Amino acid sequence: MLIEKTVLNDERNVTLTAYLQPVKGEFYYIEKRPGILIIPGGGYETCSEREAEPAAFAFLQSGFQAFVLRYSVGKDAEWPNPLNDYEQAMCLIRQKAEEWHVYPDKIAVAGFSAGGHLAASAAVLAENRPNAAVLGYAVLTEESAHEWLDSAPGLIDKVHSGMCPCFLFSARTDSIVPVRNTIRFTEALEKNGVMFESHIYSYGPHGFSTGTSSVLDPDAAICPRARRWVYDCADWLKEVLGDYTQTGMSAPLYGTSVNGDSEAYLSVNCTVGCLMKNPEAGIVLRRLSDDMKDLLSESCREQLAGRRDLNSVTLRVKLSDMLGFEGIPCDKTARYDRELRSIRNCSYSG
Amino acid sequence: MLIEKTVLNDERNVTLTAYLQPVKGEFYYIEKRPGILIIPGGGYETCSEREAEPAAFAFLQSGFQAFVLRYSVGKDAEWPNPLNDYEQAMCLIRQKAEEWHVYPDKIAVAGFSAGGHLAASAAVLAENRPNAAVLGYAVLTEESAHEWLDSAPGLIDKVHSGMCPCFLFSARTDSIVPVRNTIRFTEALEKNGVMFESHIYSYGPHGFSTGTSSVLDPDAAICPRARRWVYDCADWLKEVLGDYTQTGMSAPLYGTSVNGDSEAYLSVNCTVGCLMKNPEAGIVLRRLSDDMKDLLSESCREQLAGRRDLNSVTLRVKLSDMLGFEGIPCDKTARYDRELRSIRNCSYSG
Amino acid sequence: MLIEKTVLNDERNVTLTAYLQPVKGEFYYIEKRPGILIIPGGGYETCSEREAEPAAFAFLQSGFQAFVLRYSVGKDAEWPNPLNDYEQAMCLIRQKAEEWHVYPDKIAVAGFSAGGHLAASAAVLAENRPNAAVLGYAVLTEESAHEWLDSAPGLIDKVHSGMCPCFLFSARTDSIVPVRNTIRFTEALEKNGVMFESHIYSYGPHGFSTGTSSVLDPDAAICPRARRWVYDCADWLKEVLGDYTQTGMSAPLYGTSVNGDSEAYLSVNCTVGCLMKNPEAGIVLRRLSDDMKDLLSESCREQLAGRRDLNSVTLRVKLSDMLGFEGIPCDKTARYDRELRSIRNCSYSG
Amino acid sequence: MLIEKTVLNDERNVTLTAYLQPVKGEFYYIEKRPGILIIPGGGYETCSEREAEPAAFAFLQSGFQAFVLRYSVGKDAEWPNPLNDYEQAMCLIRQKAEEWHVYPDKIAVAGFSAGGHLAASAAVLAENRPNAAVLGYAVLTEESAHEWLDSAPGLIDKVHSGMCPCFLFSARTDSIVPVRNTIRFTEALEKNGVMFESHIYSYGPHGFSTGTSSVLDPDAAICPRARRWVYDCADWLKEVLGDYTQTGMSAPLYGTSVNGDSEAYLSVNCTVGCLMKNPEAGIVLRRLSDDMKDLLSESCREQLAGRRDLNSVTLRVKLSDMLGFEGIPCDKTARYDRELRSIRNCSYSG
Repeated sequence: MLIEKTVLNDERNVTLTAYLQPVKGEFYYIEKRPGILIIPGGGYETCSEREAEPAAFAFLQSGFQAFVLRYSVGKDAEWPNPLNDYEQAMCLIRQKAEEWHVYPDKIAVAGFSAGGHLAASAAVLAENRPNAAVLGYAVLTEESAHEWLDSAPGLIDKVHSGMCPCFLFSARTDSIVPVRNTIRFTEALEKNGVMFESHIYSYGPHGFSTGTSSVLDPDAAICPRARRWVYDCADWLKEVLGDYTQTGMSAPLYGTSVNGDSEAYLSVNCTVGCLMKNPEAGIVLRRLSDDMKDLLSESCREQLAGRRDLNSVTLRVKLSDMLGFEGIPCDKTARYDRELRSIRNCSYSG
Repeated sequence: MLIEKTVLNDERNVTLTAYLQPVKGEFYYIEKRPGILIIPGGGYETCSEREAEPAAFAFLQSGFQAFVLRYSVGKDAEWPNPLNDYEQAMCLIRQKAEEWHVYPDKIAVAGFSAGGHLAASAAVLAENRPNAAVLGYAVLTEESAHEWLDSAPGLIDKVHSGMCPCFLFSARTDSIVPVRNTIRFTEALEKNGVMFESHIYSYGPHGFSTGTSSVLDPDAAICPRARRWVYDCADWLKEVLGDYTQTGMSAPLYGTSVNGDSEAYLSVNCTVGCLMKNPEAGIVLRRLSDDMKDLLSESCREQLAGRRDLNSVTLRVKLSDMLGFEGIPCDKTARYDRELRSIRNCSYSG
Repeated sequence: MLIEKTVLNDERNVTLTAYLQPVKGEFYYIEKRPGILIIPGGGYETCSEREAEPAAFAFLQSGFQAFVLRYSVGKDAEWPNPLNDYEQAMCLIRQKAEEWHVYPDKIAVAGFSAGGHLAASAAVLAENRPNAAVLGYAVLTEESAHEWLDSAPGLIDKVHSGMCPCFLFSARTDSIVPVRNTIRFTEALEKNGVMFESHIYSYGPHGFSTGTSSVLDPDAAICPRARRWVYDCADWLKEVLGDYTQTGMSAPLYGTSVNGDSEAYLSVNCTVGCLMKNPEAGIVLRRLSDDMKDLLSESCREQLAGRRDLNSVTLRVKLSDMLGFEGIPCDKTARYDRELRSIRNCSYSG
Repeated sequence: MLIEKTVLNDERNVTLTAYLQPVKGEFYYIEKRPGILIIPGGGYETCSEREAEPAAFAFLQSGFQAFVLRYSVGKDAEWPNPLNDYEQAMCLIRQKAEEWHVYPDKIAVAGFSAGGHLAASAAVLAENRPNAAVLGYAVLTEESAHEWLDSAPGLIDKVHSGMCPCFLFSARTDSIVPVRNTIRFTEALEKNGVMFESHIYSYGPHGFSTGTSSVLDPDAAICPRARRWVYDCADWLKEVLGDYTQTGMSAPLYGTSVNGDSEAYLSVNCTVGCLMKNPEAGIVLRRLSDDMKDLLSESCREQLAGRRDLNSVTLRVKLSDMLGFEGIPCDKTARYDRELRSIRNCSYSG
């Protein structure tokens, strides 16, 4: 492993430390590695060492190239300095992707506390977006952000459907950054159809980092489940970014969105609720309902017609549920999918 | 083990099945056991077998007396019939606590989907409250509740500070009961200071029950972490209800509330924000600040005086943070605690 | 679930209790279930309740039909009474396989302590063999067996290549049944090429059963890893017996033997050491070595000729290792496999 | 973290790479850290990168100072060169203990395959003994050792009661280093009363290192449990070496030996079998038996007198078992302990 430190901003004391594992050779099937940019917390007053390398080790073990960003804090923290530091860091990593053997489109951020605020800012606001975001007991609401840095923006209302998947964790009893930060952010992710995973553990102190005895005040009361986020997150990142195979990385298990409601054109991946808002799609749905007269019960057809319905279910799932074990006529699903894909999504904001 | 089935309501086909493990004898240190009342889902149309016994086995293994409630569904589901069924069941369990060797004050409910709606109703509305509630991909918002049963109440705004701790889990991609149900309930728990733990797994189908291959559609795509809720929940219940020891059950690790803000009288367990709303307490805080002049920095004293502060931190934590490793003068904390406990909490609603 | 108790022997107080889960209906893809026969310990003096139902719950949760055998103990324990009890029980389960919805060829035994002695006896000696054996801190050596029951046989030297796969676990500090029982049995399994998994945890008392607080002396010092055998074993049984799928059970992941050395005819699955003992096979090996002259280095060819070699490696693995990433000419492997399969294995004892 | 590489032997290309984490500062309660010396495998032909840094990351995350030894291989491997390399490395680490912030008496070795042979040699043969040894699919028998290096010693018969605790793991289907190596070593540890933990996973390839997808041939079939050795081993090391607390490291949970049979003087920690071999101790035992006439049943007293007994149980455990819940007269145990401690252990070999 090489450790390479780059000064990003001498005046503000901003640095990027790269922890670079070898590729090829004995790792013959590895040409590049996914990357993770660790952003430690510290209330925008400092960059905590407890949330820097100890977090990097966990992802190095999982096969990542790891990076630690030490960003503008204290008197230099005035927004958007920290975000600019992030932009510079992510930009550099992608520029050096060949040299550093990292996939430029498989780079996650992982931020803790105030660093979680910066990581989430990267996910919702930055020009150089990360491909996944890990947010540990992160500062996310305007109210909490202002407690730490007057100029730091609240992020809840900046969540949008095009952003990357997120992994959130925190402890219920966190008395420094209330869990409401995590909850309100997941709420916004849900509203915008963004994929995520979230764990709120019953109790633990603020700033528990990886939860091992060497980074934690040893006598801190912490729920034993809390230290599992490290392994859970490593597994989740494989779902989101893909995993090593003999021939490069496997495809991600899922995209960034739960359904097609935020795409430019409609499809069977849209929820029935979304489709019914669109008059053109309504016509298609009614035709579909007629078309499947023989296959569907009266009540199912009424559902398709939009009366008393589970509007949040995608059409694909609904058809599959309705037709069940009798078998879905796949060609029909495909045909109606093509039809819907020719209709513009009026609620598309992209 | 004895399996004992009681008909609670013949007309509506309501039954309570008890799975009763032995006590004493070889289990010499066990006089009674904690209990769990399983409430299977099924959209208030049916009671799913997949969420009945398979869930009971998990808690039986953990040492519980388990109970399965089959409540009013279909044409009999009109609210409050299901809640009345619950009341009857919980009432019966507590009545028979001696005979069934169950601690009457250590009985959790665990509900799934629509059964989760009933379990949460028990936690927020019932006369016979459970001591902990496990809510699996539960129906909780008014919107979702009405999709399944027109007369079923939404539960989000019924959450209150006196209710039992909750354990919630669901899958992000649930297309039958949106995760927003889980999120909005945790938000309400947070606002009311109720203890909880929550896990939202990245993907999985609705209705995954314990997540083992024998209860799940075998080809269902489900995140491997999802099946861990069973063990996590068993561990959480030990925190909440206590665990077996040589001399009865240990004390719960924590109460139902995160801080003292919802108690009738103030204390050092109240947040600084709560204390500062109370003029009498404000006087105590200022006296405390003067009293600790020698121990605290100017900035700390300003914090205590309420200028630019982390209002959500309890006074106990704040004092501990401020005084840090120098050592907290415990006698002082205790003295001010006594003072505060003589002041009525004006925001107490109990 | 139905609990059905059958008296197998009234005089000796031998019973079989069946815990039978439903199939079909909501479990529409389940026609039958794998089974597990629990054999509690108790030094052939008693049948411990702590190792009976608590163990059954774990496997019920995993989707098994569970059975508990209460066998001849105390004055009735004279060998082979307990083994006869087992035979009767296994015979009955297989007879009633249709009625009890259990796969007759997917029935494991799980025995603890002296019950582990009986379970291992079933695996090595019985007429009605189990399909897998779980041996918890089991009595296995002659020395230990005689301490508990003079007439009970030692089982180490009765291990043979045709027996079922085994899962063993025990605690290093077991002061009642020394871990040497577990070690010497695994040694015999290894010598005979039988598949197994084994976990010896650093410390714990004898008789920890499932390791949960409700079956353990609550103050017993036990290594936290010890309670994981339950889940590990459930996963292992899926490898060995297959797992639920939409169309019945999946095939087992592996057979009962590590290599082909104990089969009646030779094959590329035999170790090179085994092949070289056979003059006919030696001729085939030399021909193979010549045949691959162009593909293999001189040193590899010498290895094939049996000079200074890893004799315990199968020919299939050796060819694959030698040819490595260049690619194995599969047709050649297949051709030589056919040739070897026509040669009788002189060390076959079946 | 600092990475510091020291050339130990220029001619033989032997190096020690230290991965040094900070102490004090934000890690205010950490003055020193436990250490682990990683010894990669490679058949004494090479030092595998897959078993070097990837293994180090796991222990760095757990709070250790990590070291990787690249020892004499190929033409330089002639024994005892590799062992001398180890001695030099361990010697250097302990010399630099102050500078490198490592506890000199809390340094484990972790070796894989041939590196496991070297790690085990360190544990049984070296002058500079490690304080714990982790042996992954290690070469341990004479037969296996000679397959890789003619001059390398077999280690089974060199195991002795004074050596450090060991953690062993391997895969049942390892076709390069047969599991019999692991089994026979545990057998020797057991005979000598040395503490250990051992996991043999049902299947996996040789050389799986930490089992993550980035160090494993991605298509290798490996039992999912196999990758757990990393976390299990980290937990085990905390038992053996102690864990971080506010005031330095906690005491180890247990010593290196299971009982007192290998100490210079007898005690109640000796097994009854060991005591009964000693005529003086026999007299003490009979006196004890008379002394407890009122407390013990006839059969218990016969056991103490050595007739038909569980000779492997320590006297302390036996007394506790016999007297059970009535309560052990601790003063008596203490008195007889004192008496026994005045008797030389004739089987002491130290």
